[in-house]
Order: sequence, then C-alpha cells, then structure tokens
Amino acid sequence: MKLASFYRPQSDEKSYGIVTEHGVIDAGRRFSDRYSTLQSLLNDNALNILHELDGTPADYATDDIVFLPVIETPGKIFCVGMNYSDKRKEFEENNNAPTLFIRFPDTFSAHKDNLIKPATSDEFDYEGELAVVIGRYASEVKKENALDYIAGYSCFMDATVRDMQHTWFTAGKNWRQTGGFGPWLVTTDEITDPQALPIETYLNGMRVQNDTTGNMIHTVADIIEYISRFSPLSPGDVIITGSPGGVGKKRTPPLFMKSGDTIEVKIGGIGTLTNQIVAQAV
Amino acid sequence: MKLASFYRPQSDEKSYGIVTEHGVIDAGRRFSDRYSTLQSLLNDNALNILHELDGTPADYATDDIVFLPVIETPGKIFCVGMNYSDKRKEFEENNNAPTLFIRFPDTFSAHKDNLIKPATSDEFDYEGELAVVIGRYASEVKKENALDYIAGYSCFMDATVRDMQHTWFTAGKNWRQTGGFGPWLVTTDEITDPQALPIETYLNGMRVQNDTTGNMIHTVADIIEYISRFSPLSPGDVIITGSPGGVGKKRTPPLFMKSGDTIEVKIGGIGTLTNQIVAQAV
Repeated sequence: MKLASFYRPQSDEKSYGIVTEHGVIDAGRRFSDRYSTLQSLLNDNALNILHELDGTPADYATDDIVFLPVIETPGKIFCVGMNYSDKRKEFEENNNAPTLFIRFPDTFSAHKDNLIKPATSDEFDYEGELAVVIGRYASEVKKENALDYIAGYSCFMDATVRDMQHTWFTAGKNWRQTGGFGPWLVTTDEITDPQALPIETYLNGMRVQNDTTGNMIHTVADIIEYISRFSPLSPGDVIITGSPGGVGKKRTPPLFMKSGDTIEVKIGGIGTLTNQIVAQAV
Repeated sequence: MKLASFYRPQSDEKSYGIVTEHGVIDAGRRFSDRYSTLQSLLNDNALNILHELDGTPADYATDDIVFLPVIETPGKIFCVGMNYSDKRKEFEENNNAPTLFIRFPDTFSAHKDNLIKPATSDEFDYEGELAVVIGRYASEVKKENALDYIAGYSCFMDATVRDMQHTWFTAGKNWRQTGGFGPWLVTTDEITDPQALPIETYLNGMRVQNDTTGNMIHTVADIIEYISRFSPLSPGDVIITGSPGGVGKKRTPPLFMKSGDTIEVKIGGIGTLTNQIVAQAV
C-alpha cells in the first residue's frame, strides 16, 4: 500500500489515505474517531485496519490533494551521512561508525512543495535518500529482525546548506523547509528488501545521482540495530539513510540548486518525490 | 524565581512550582485549569502570573518533592560543543563556527536522579554546562536583544559516551538518561548577565571543572542569533552552552564516571545539580 498524508483545500482538513492508480481513498475520514493522522495509526500498530478499505472506490483524484510530509512531526529524525561508498570517497570519510545527525520536523517539506534556499548561502546542495518510517517501538533490536520494526519506506531530499555543514552537520541540515519527504510511505509487504532499490536524483530533468541501495555501507538493518542500542525508536520516527555520490559540491564545476530549479528523487518500488527550489524571502 | 518541575509520590501527580528557602509553592495545582506544566506556562508567555503567589506559604518541604527535568519534553534541544577555550585546546578544535549537536528529551534525567552508564562503554565522561530555556518564539533574532527571548537558566550535566562521540556527536550524546537537567530554572530577573557565572563540576566531591561562563567562545546571545537564523526556537526549547575544560577523557590518567559515583554541577546564581551514576542493566 502507498499511504500519504494530505490536506484538502476543499474541506480545509488534514487527512491521510491510500493512494491507488485510480486516486486516493480517504482513510482519515473513515477512521477519524480512532486515528486522526497516519502517525496515530502507526502508534497503535493498526496499519491492518486499512485493509477494511480494500476495494473502496477512490474519493479524490491524486491531483486534488495537497501532499503533506508523510509523517509531519516524528519524535526522532535520525539521518545517516556518508553511507554510500562513492559519497565517502567524495568527502574523504574514513570513520567506520555510522555517521549520524539529526533533523527537526520543521525542516520538512511535502511532495510538490517548495524547498527554501537560504539567502545567505549559494551552496544549496541535493542529496536523494531512502527514508525509513518506524512502525513499532524498537529498543536494542538485533539486525536479524530489525526490518520487522519498519512500517514502510519513502523518498527524501536531504537538501543541504553545504557551507554550514561542518563535521557535525547540524546547522547545514536544519534550515526550515529543506527536507523533501514523500510522496508516500510504501508498506513493507511491497518492499521486502530495502537493499535492492535503484535510487536516482534529477535536477531539472538531468540525472545527477544514480546508485542502488545495495551500495549502502551500513544497511537499514545495521542502522536500526546501531541506533536502537542507545536511543529507542517509536512508531512514526524516521531514519534517513544517506545519499549516493554525485552531489553538487564535489562536481567540477560545482552544481548547486537555485531558485526555480526542480529536484526529484526517484526510488524503485516507491515513486518520485518532486520539489521546487525557491529563494528565502529577505 | 526558582521554578521546578516535580512529581509528588503522595498524590501520584506531576506539577511545577516555586522553590523558596521555606519549601515549594505548588503552582501547577493552582493554575491547573490553564497551565498543567511549566512548559505550557512558557508557551503562553505567562510567567508573570506566578507573582500572584507572592507571599504564599510553601506547600511542601523541598525534600518531599521528586524533581523532574526542568522541561520534560522540549521541542528542540540544541547543544553547543567546544565552547570554552580550555575545552577547545583539549580537543584541538579550530573551526570558528559554533559546534552544534542535538539531544533528544529521553536523554534527560532530573536532579537527584540517576545517570546511566552504558554497559558497552568505560568512557562515561562528565561535562558541566549552563542550560538556557527559551521563553519566547525566536526567529532571526539579533544578538543585541537575544537575551529577551530567554525564560531562565539551569544547570546541565552533559554526560558523554566518549568512545561513541565522533566529530558528529550524535551517538555519544543520546544514550537514554545521560543528561542531568536541573534542579530548577532561575528566571532572568535574577541572572541579568549569563556571561558572569562561576561554573564548577564535582566528581565525588572533588572539583574537576572550574571556570566562568565569561570564558565562553560564543556567548549565549551569539548562540541564539546563530541558531535562530536557520531554526526557529520556541518556548521551552533548551540550549546547552558547552563545557569548560578538565573533562575526564583528557586527563592523565583519564578519569571516567563509574557506578556509584556522584556528579554535581554548581553554577553561581543557580544552584547545584546532583546525579548519581548507575550501570546500565544488562
């Protein structure tokens, strides 16, 4: 199933639902007494109730919803840096431990929404990534069964203010509305192996990143084991698993995003996340 | 005013109140219709209503409350690393930008509560720090009036798993229950200059850190300006401003915390935060 969080201007309401080839089935409206958001559904480990809607006709055309970030306010957003071999070479990273940094939820932007290039930076760089959404409380999980704790997968555009990245990442990764997250979560029954997904990034239609999640240094299962050793994960928490090589900072000449650009992340089995770049208002 | 969040075993209720020399005035009980937590009071910029309790006799002896972290679940917890010159020398840090990392709220521990030394590390190190609690929404604030956005100050023990610190900090700073936060928030009317506070750390009664906040590289006002440029701060958000030199990792021989130890952070004008070290259960 593809599950999206969305807003409907017609009713001025937020909801969530199942995206099908015929349109969107509004689950939030039908289960609003119990689960007002996708996150609340995950909190209760209740994805299965969505099967009650099997065969239900679509309520809206997909073009009629305004996408929201798949999970709007995760409790924890862990991001893995330097997790593809090409990227590690570009940044000369040699530490074997998973590189981890944190984003806050107000850095999110939805599918089709804008990413904001800070006025003070001309190094606004792209990083297309696989996002993992946690489905069950996970503490001290072993890699062998780590995938059981996942609700699903999505695309993420980890847009980075490169000149504020530093070795501690925080400032370069936490500007408002710099993390594209969507379009939807694909449940794990449709993606049994997260390490076998082609992942590509397109800047204005030109492919600028092209790899497979099979080339991650630390697999999704490794990462969940590592993180859950020190920090428990809860339903709706998000792990962003790192970017392939080919980022703009390491090109000759460098290639950064500017106002008016379109950036897309395409992952096999999930779909394509699209965002536009706009300049920060000053 | 000294404001503490606490739990009362007698009533099995959480509350908050004013700590005086005669005991604790329970504000949460009196304002529970409007403000159930100290954070909710800050959200509404309503610290002033506490003056309605001026002259009220204390409800409890201070020894009868169980302290909670001053703010239990801040939306954002920013931590500044390498912010005293002695500490920078110890760690050979030369980057002029503020070193920033993030903690999650589940790393907090209250005054008098335990800090948990991970079973897998023998490098559990102390860092005594000044904590800043934000009182007003702060976006793109200038340093000249940055202090106006502060609700108050507290002590913080930023206990660190040194062998998992890396240059990105995240894992070494996010083990559960490793951040002592308290005992209370002292409002800004009592601390007009946060850069003039003596700050000391005591391990089992021995002074192991001794400096003044006047030796911060980036002042509290600088930090608020820097962070609020990219990430808006909200009431109840916390900034932990970095540790002086003298940490255990850089001593000869190294001096780490072990089960049974008592660690204290004493800051002039605020008070003393006390925590005990216990070993992680395995």
